[in-house]
Amino acid sequence: MDEIPPVNVSQKLSLFSDHWSPRVIAELNDYQIKVAKLCGEFVWHSHADTDEMFYCVSGSVRIELREGSVTLTSGEMYVVPKGVEHRPVADEECHVLLIEPRGVINTGDTPSDRTAPNDRWV
Amino acid sequence: MDEIPPVNVSQKLSLFSDHWSPRVIAELNDYQIKVAKLCGEFVWHSHADTDEMFYCVSGSVRIELREGSVTLTSGEMYVVPKGVEHRPVADEECHVLLIEPRGVINTGDTPSDRTAPNDRWV
Repeated sequence: MDEIPPVNVSQKLSLFSDHWSPRVIAELNDYQIKVAKLCGEFVWHSHADTDEMFYCVSGSVRIELREGSVTLTSGEMYVVPKGVEHRPVADEECHVLLIEPRGVINTGDTPSDRTAPNDRWV
Repeated sequence: MDEIPPVNVSQKLSLFSDHWSPRVIAELNDYQIKVAKLCGEFVWHSHADTDEMFYCVSGSVRIELREGSVTLTSGEMYVVPKGVEHRPVADEECHVLLIEPRGVINTGDTPSDRTAPNDRWV
Protein backbone atom coordinates (compact mmCIF):
# COMPACT_ATOMS: atom_id res chain seq x y z
CA MET A 1 0.00 0.00 0.00
CA ASP A 2 1.13 3.54 -0.64
CA GLU A 3 2.53 5.37 2.35
CA ILE A 4 0.73 8.70 2.78
CA PRO A 5 2.70 11.37 4.67
CA PRO A 6 1.23 12.63 7.96
CA VAL A 7 1.27 16.29 8.98
CA ASN A 8 4.23 16.74 11.32
CA VAL A 9 3.57 19.70 13.61
CA SER A 10 7.20 20.43 14.52
CA GLN A 11 8.26 20.24 10.89
CA LYS A 12 5.53 22.72 9.95
CA LEU A 13 6.66 25.06 12.74
CA SER A 14 10.22 24.94 11.39
CA LEU A 15 9.09 26.54 8.12
CA PHE A 16 8.42 30.04 9.44
CA SER A 17 9.66 32.30 12.20
CA ASP A 18 7.31 35.27 12.54
CA HIS A 19 5.24 35.70 15.68
CA TRP A 20 1.44 36.02 15.97
CA SER A 21 0.96 34.87 12.40
CA PRO A 22 -0.96 31.60 12.30
CA ARG A 23 -0.43 29.13 9.45
CA VAL A 24 -3.01 26.54 8.45
CA ILE A 25 -1.73 22.94 8.46
CA ALA A 26 -4.96 20.95 8.06
CA GLU A 27 -8.71 21.29 7.70
CA LEU A 28 -11.43 19.32 9.46
CA ASN A 29 -14.81 19.96 7.85
CA ASP A 30 -15.18 23.75 8.10
CA TYR A 31 -12.55 24.05 10.83
CA GLN A 32 -8.87 24.81 10.41
CA ILE A 33 -5.95 23.52 12.44
CA LYS A 34 -3.25 26.16 12.61
CA VAL A 35 0.21 26.48 14.12
CA ALA A 36 1.55 29.74 15.49
CA LYS A 37 4.61 31.10 17.26
CA LEU A 38 3.78 33.46 20.10
CA CYS A 39 6.19 35.82 21.83
CA GLY A 40 5.37 38.84 23.97
CA GLU A 41 1.93 40.27 24.61
CA PHE A 42 -0.93 40.00 22.16
CA VAL A 43 -3.95 42.34 22.07
CA TRP A 44 -7.08 41.86 24.13
CA HIS A 45 -9.83 40.54 21.88
CA SER A 46 -12.76 38.16 21.68
CA HIS A 47 -14.48 36.10 19.03
CA ALA A 48 -18.21 36.77 19.09
CA ASP A 49 -19.24 33.69 17.17
CA THR A 50 -16.89 30.90 18.17
CA ASP A 51 -14.86 29.16 20.83
CA GLU A 52 -11.11 28.95 20.19
CA MET A 53 -8.86 26.07 21.17
CA PHE A 54 -5.23 26.58 22.20
CA TYR A 55 -2.94 23.54 22.53
CA CYS A 56 0.64 24.21 23.64
CA VAL A 57 3.26 22.29 21.65
CA SER A 58 6.36 23.77 23.29
CA GLY A 59 7.25 26.63 25.61
CA SER A 60 4.65 28.28 27.78
CA VAL A 61 1.85 30.78 27.23
CA ARG A 62 -0.42 32.53 29.69
CA ILE A 63 -3.90 33.18 28.37
CA GLU A 64 -5.20 36.14 30.31
CA LEU A 65 -8.95 36.43 30.75
CA ARG A 66 -10.76 39.24 32.52
CA GLU A 67 -11.56 36.96 35.45
CA GLY A 68 -8.32 34.99 35.68
CA SER A 69 -5.63 33.38 33.59
CA VAL A 70 -4.66 29.95 32.31
CA THR A 71 -1.01 28.97 31.86
CA LEU A 72 -0.33 26.31 29.24
CA THR A 73 2.85 24.29 28.91
CA SER A 74 3.60 21.49 26.44
CA GLY A 75 0.71 19.03 26.18
CA GLU A 76 -1.84 21.33 27.80
CA MET A 77 -4.90 22.91 26.20
CA TYR A 78 -7.64 25.40 26.92
CA VAL A 79 -10.76 26.38 25.02
CA VAL A 80 -11.55 30.09 25.24
CA PRO A 81 -15.35 30.30 25.16
CA LYS A 82 -17.15 32.32 22.53
CA GLY A 83 -17.34 36.01 23.39
CA VAL A 84 -14.80 35.86 26.21
CA GLU A 85 -12.11 38.53 26.09
CA HIS A 86 -8.61 37.08 26.20
CA ARG A 87 -5.00 38.04 25.67
CA PRO A 88 -2.22 35.48 25.12
CA VAL A 89 1.11 36.46 26.69
CA ALA A 90 4.31 34.47 26.16
CA ASP A 91 7.40 35.61 28.07
CA GLU A 92 9.52 33.52 25.71
CA GLU A 93 8.67 32.03 22.33
CA CYS A 94 5.87 29.49 22.56
CA HIS A 95 4.51 27.21 19.86
CA VAL A 96 0.81 26.42 19.75
CA LEU A 97 -1.82 24.59 17.78
CA LEU A 98 -5.05 26.54 17.26
CA ILE A 99 -8.34 25.06 16.16
CA GLU A 100 -11.21 27.27 15.08
CA PRO A 101 -13.69 27.62 12.22
CA ARG A 102 -12.36 28.71 8.84
CA GLY A 103 -12.46 32.49 8.51
CA VAL A 104 -11.79 33.45 12.12
CA ILE A 105 -9.61 36.55 12.39
CA ASN A 106 -6.76 36.28 14.91
CA THR A 107 -7.56 39.61 16.55
CA GLY A 108 -11.31 38.92 16.67
CA ASP A 109 -13.25 42.10 17.35
CA THR A 110 -10.09 44.22 17.77
CA PRO A 111 -8.40 44.73 14.40
CA SER A 112 -4.89 46.20 14.65
CA ASP A 113 -1.43 45.88 13.15
CA ARG A 114 -1.46 42.44 14.77
CA THR A 115 -4.28 41.30 12.49
CA ALA A 116 -2.84 38.51 10.34
CA PRO A 117 -3.97 37.37 6.90
CA ASN A 118 -6.20 34.34 6.84
CA ASP A 119 -5.83 31.05 4.97
CA ARG A 120 -2.05 31.11 4.92
CA TRP A 121 -0.98 27.49 4.63
CA VAL A 122 2.40 26.11 5.51
CA MET B 1 -6.04 37.03 39.07
CA ASP B 2 -7.36 33.55 39.66
CA GLU B 3 -5.37 30.75 38.11
CA ILE B 4 -7.63 28.58 35.96
CA PRO B 5 -6.38 25.01 35.42
CA PRO B 6 -5.63 23.96 31.84
CA VAL B 7 -6.55 20.55 30.42
CA ASN B 8 -3.44 18.38 30.64
CA VAL B 9 -3.63 15.66 28.00
CA SER B 10 -1.19 13.22 29.65
CA GLN B 11 -2.93 13.60 33.00
CA LYS B 12 -6.28 12.85 31.37
CA LEU B 13 -4.78 9.77 29.68
CA SER B 14 -3.52 8.53 33.07
CA LEU B 15 -7.10 8.26 34.35
CA PHE B 16 -8.20 5.26 32.30
CA SER B 17 -6.64 2.20 30.74
CA ASP B 18 -9.12 0.59 28.35
CA HIS B 19 -8.44 0.56 24.62
CA TRP B 20 -10.63 1.93 21.81
CA SER B 21 -12.80 3.81 24.28
CA PRO B 22 -12.53 7.56 23.66
CA ARG B 23 -13.01 10.00 26.53
CA VAL B 24 -14.05 13.62 26.00
CA ILE B 25 -11.67 16.18 27.53
CA ALA B 26 -12.95 19.44 26.03
CA GLU B 27 -15.56 20.89 23.71
CA LEU B 28 -15.11 23.49 20.99
CA ASN B 29 -18.48 24.76 19.77
CA ASP B 30 -20.24 21.56 18.63
CA TYR B 31 -16.98 19.63 18.37
CA GLN B 32 -15.42 17.38 20.98
CA ILE B 33 -11.75 16.82 21.74
CA LYS B 34 -11.23 13.27 22.93
CA VAL B 35 -8.32 11.16 24.10
CA ALA B 36 -8.08 7.43 23.41
CA LYS B 37 -5.69 4.54 23.93
CA LEU B 38 -5.34 2.32 20.89
CA CYS B 39 -3.80 -1.15 20.81
CA GLY B 40 -4.20 -3.82 18.15
CA GLU B 41 -6.45 -3.62 15.12
CA PHE B 42 -9.67 -1.65 15.02
CA VAL B 43 -12.56 -2.35 12.62
CA TRP B 44 -12.82 -0.91 9.13
CA HIS B 45 -15.36 1.89 9.16
CA SER B 46 -16.14 5.33 7.79
CA HIS B 47 -18.03 8.41 8.92
CA ALA B 48 -20.51 9.48 6.24
CA ASP B 49 -21.00 13.00 7.51
CA THR B 50 -17.69 14.18 8.90
CA ASP B 51 -13.93 14.29 8.68
CA GLU B 52 -12.05 12.91 11.69
CA MET B 53 -8.77 14.24 13.05
CA PHE B 54 -6.17 11.97 14.65
CA TYR B 55 -3.23 13.54 16.53
CA CYS B 56 -0.67 11.14 17.99
CA VAL B 57 0.41 12.02 21.53
CA SER B 58 2.69 9.02 22.15
CA GLY B 59 3.48 5.70 20.55
CA SER B 60 2.65 5.00 16.93
CA VAL B 61 -0.50 4.18 14.98
CA ARG B 62 -0.97 3.19 11.36
CA ILE B 63 -4.21 4.44 9.86
CA GLU B 64 -4.99 2.07 7.04
CA LEU B 65 -7.05 3.42 4.16
CA ARG B 66 -8.21 1.42 1.15
CA GLU B 67 -5.69 3.24 -1.05
CA GLY B 68 -2.73 3.47 1.31
CA SER B 69 -1.82 4.05 4.91
CA VAL B 70 -0.57 6.85 7.13
CA THR B 71 1.73 6.18 10.08
CA LEU B 72 1.57 8.69 12.92
CA THR B 73 4.14 9.08 15.67
CA SER B 74 4.18 11.66 18.48
CA GLY B 75 3.40 15.16 17.18
CA GLU B 76 1.95 13.98 13.88
CA MET B 77 -1.64 14.28 12.68
CA TYR B 78 -3.89 13.19 9.86
CA VAL B 79 -7.45 14.10 8.96
CA VAL B 80 -9.43 11.17 7.56
CA PRO B 81 -11.83 12.69 5.04
CA LYS B 82 -15.57 12.23 5.33
CA GLY B 83 -16.76 8.94 3.88
CA VAL B 84 -13.29 7.40 3.60
CA GLU B 85 -12.97 3.89 4.99
CA HIS B 86 -10.20 3.56 7.52
CA ARG B 87 -8.84 1.19 10.16
CA PRO B 88 -6.41 2.30 12.88
CA VAL B 89 -3.83 -0.34 13.81
CA ALA B 90 -1.40 0.06 16.71
CA ASP B 91 1.19 -2.69 17.19
CA GLU B 92 1.80 -1.38 20.71
CA GLU B 93 -0.31 0.96 22.85
CA CYS B 94 -0.66 4.38 21.28
CA HIS B 95 -2.26 7.50 22.74
CA VAL B 96 -4.16 9.87 20.48
CA LEU B 97 -6.23 13.02 20.47
CA LEU B 98 -9.35 12.85 18.31
CA ILE B 99 -11.38 15.84 17.18
CA GLU B 100 -14.79 15.39 15.62
CA PRO B 101 -18.32 16.74 15.93
CA ARG B 102 -20.29 15.83 19.05
CA GLY B 103 -22.27 12.64 18.50
CA VAL B 104 -19.87 10.82 16.17
CA ILE B 105 -19.81 7.07 16.86
CA ASN B 106 -16.30 5.56 17.03
CA THR B 107 -17.17 2.70 14.69
CA GLY B 108 -19.00 4.96 12.22
CA ASP B 109 -21.12 2.94 9.81
CA THR B 110 -19.92 -0.41 11.23
CA PRO B 111 -21.41 -0.98 14.68
CA SER B 112 -19.82 -3.88 16.58
CA ASP B 113 -18.64 -4.88 20.04
CA ARG B 114 -16.04 -2.18 19.51
CA THR B 115 -18.73 0.54 19.46
CA ALA B 116 -18.05 2.73 22.51
CA PRO B 117 -20.52 4.88 24.43
CA ASN B 118 -20.52 8.54 23.55
CA ASP B 119 -20.05 11.59 25.76
CA ARG B 120 -17.89 9.87 28.31
CA TRP B 121 -15.82 12.61 29.91
CA VAL B 122 -12.62 12.14 31.81
